[in-house]
Amino acid sequence: MPTTPYLQIDLARLRRNIARAAEFAQGAGVALRPHVKTHKSVEIARLQLAAGAVGISVATIGEAETFVRNGVGDVFVAYPLWLDDAAAGRLSDLTGDAAVAIGVDSVEGAANAGRLLGASTVEVLVEVDCGHHRSGVLPHDAGKVALAAVRTGLTVRGVFAFPGHSYAPGALAGAAADESAALREAAGALRDAGIEPRVISGGSTPSLAHSDTEVLTELRPGVYVFGDAQQWELGAMSPGSIALTCRSTVVSHAGDRLVLDAGSKVLGADRAPYATGFGRLPDHPDARIVLLSEHHAVVDLDGARLPPLGSQVDVVPNHVCNAVNLVDSVYAEESGELRPWSVAARGLNS
Amino acid sequence: MPTTPYLQIDLARLRRNIARAAEFAQGAGVALRPHVKTHKSVEIARLQLAAGAVGISVATIGEAETFVRNGVGDVFVAYPLWLDDAAAGRLSDLTGDAAVAIGVDSVEGAANAGRLLGASTVEVLVEVDCGHHRSGVLPHDAGKVALAAVRTGLTVRGVFAFPGHSYAPGALAGAAADESAALREAAGALRDAGIEPRVISGGSTPSLAHSDTEVLTELRPGVYVFGDAQQWELGAMSPGSIALTCRSTVVSHAGDRLVLDAGSKVLGADRAPYATGFGRLPDHPDARIVLLSEHHAVVDLDGARLPPLGSQVDVVPNHVCNAVNLVDSVYAEESGELRPWSVAARGLNS
Repeated sequence: MPTTPYLQIDLARLRRNIARAAEFAQGAGVALRPHVKTHKSVEIARLQLAAGAVGISVATIGEAETFVRNGVGDVFVAYPLWLDDAAAGRLSDLTGDAAVAIGVDSVEGAANAGRLLGASTVEVLVEVDCGHHRSGVLPHDAGKVALAAVRTGLTVRGVFAFPGHSYAPGALAGAAADESAALREAAGALRDAGIEPRVISGGSTPSLAHSDTEVLTELRPGVYVFGDAQQWELGAMSPGSIALTCRSTVVSHAGDRLVLDAGSKVLGADRAPYATGFGRLPDHPDARIVLLSEHHAVVDLDGARLPPLGSQVDVVPNHVCNAVNLVDSVYAEESGELRPWSVAARGLNS
Repeated sequence: MPTTPYLQIDLARLRRNIARAAEFAQGAGVALRPHVKTHKSVEIARLQLAAGAVGISVATIGEAETFVRNGVGDVFVAYPLWLDDAAAGRLSDLTGDAAVAIGVDSVEGAANAGRLLGASTVEVLVEVDCGHHRSGVLPHDAGKVALAAVRTGLTVRGVFAFPGHSYAPGALAGAAADESAALREAAGALRDAGIEPRVISGGSTPSLAHSDTEVLTELRPGVYVFGDAQQWELGAMSPGSIALTCRSTVVSHAGDRLVLDAGSKVLGADRAPYATGFGRLPDHPDARIVLLSEHHAVVDLDGARLPPLGSQVDVVPNHVCNAVNLVDSVYAEESGELRPWSVAARGLNS
């Protein structure tokens, strides 16, 4: 057995989550290109591809390299990369084994990418801000950026957005509507510039079920494979569908507090404004983690009896992507035994 | 050159921070036992020991193993470990090469440790809650726990506390006073039980300068080697003393926003209630990181001109311990070249 704190996967739930999203996409007639930043695991990417995913989304070139090296043949870096010679060379190297696309969100970024990527087959998608106000151009500016890419010899595949403002209570459907409107306008701006978008890509786990598949041709959710306390508290996933937990040990009862050995170095320190604590306990739904340090979670059990010292308690991290990125392996029960699955792209931030 | 985002050390500042804490402890006639969870680096532990540290503090047995394997001969696991056979065996194995001590904060924990550690030379310190309300017994209960340890054949080295409630604006001196009072009372409780505490250990970076060295015999600060945005905003360290930054690249200006490629997967997601954002920019002290995702920091520059696309910007993480634990190496400039220093104990949560 691994030593606590460790992350464990419920394989049945993982498979069910993967199948459900695949069925949703298939039923709606759109492509599914899951974001693998959530799990960074070759095993899980294979399950997603076997269920019908057309390829994967990644955030960094390092993630792309890991998955292409392990046989994934279609990868989209869904990020407005600012390329230098080294980055362009790494992307070009991947095109021998995979279809590769990257994001751009400025005329300068597109021109820079075109200059450095030269005659490679790397394609670009223009990132559009659909209301999250992170990166991405305004929809009506998407044509200008696409045109700048085409002028430097790049092939423009289409447009993409991330409706990250779906991460707020009650915002799920509205964010999906914003995404639909922005992507529709951006696609029109490309057509006005004489460029037909082959792909109109969006999606986030909270907004997934609300995605406008009349407009979108591709979905890129990530967290849906595992779920986490954020999805639970947003009402986007039920506690019973959460497929990853942190197994922890009760180390202290001092002061009648429940203290677990799972801290921010295994759960991550994420705490969204709407979060009710630093993670949730599936076996104690009324409990809240009221204090989190690097190796301590202090739990308010809402009056329930404290689990004994030395006993084990499961915790659902607030944000599973950051939790998984803290460990070298997650553990999956196969044939009655816990086996490590490598977090192969852990820490690959560039 | 490493690719952004990466963590870089200012070696001159690091050395100065190490020297200052060493001088403070020496001047006050107390031992310095730095907490190495902050850096997890053998190179930096060696600098601390060379400056006079008596040994190191760690949070996990895995950290202890890493440093003992690399020649550190005195290690204190400053955590109320709940031992099982495997953990006890690992601790006993270390005693061939190092003086080893662990924390306990309950009669049951002490009895369990004594039963499993048997005749090993592992010593224990009783953890006392001095107001942070995390782990640790109330001061007057320290004698009971110490007695339980002694009865199972363990040697009690003394008492320790962590004044973590120093992490709040204006709380630095008050937390140090609470620590002094609690440790004095706990030491008295040990003496009442017939056990003379050889070590009375406390300290945190924010409260360090206020430590009552009439009561404390040992200090265990960790963050002081690097500093971070928390220390800056608490007024515990000046921006000019911060020795670790994340070098990042400007990837987007979309919507007149400044977007950097340093996100929560390299900075950590920590945001204390008093934090003004998700990290600070030393070259733009009025700027704030208003939105942080895994690979994006969106910066409000307070009206200043945006640094150009593709240019590099330094970011100070909010909580440096969690940032360092995300990377395999930090980079230090030596003889005009950036060289990787291994984060040797990265991810060792148990």
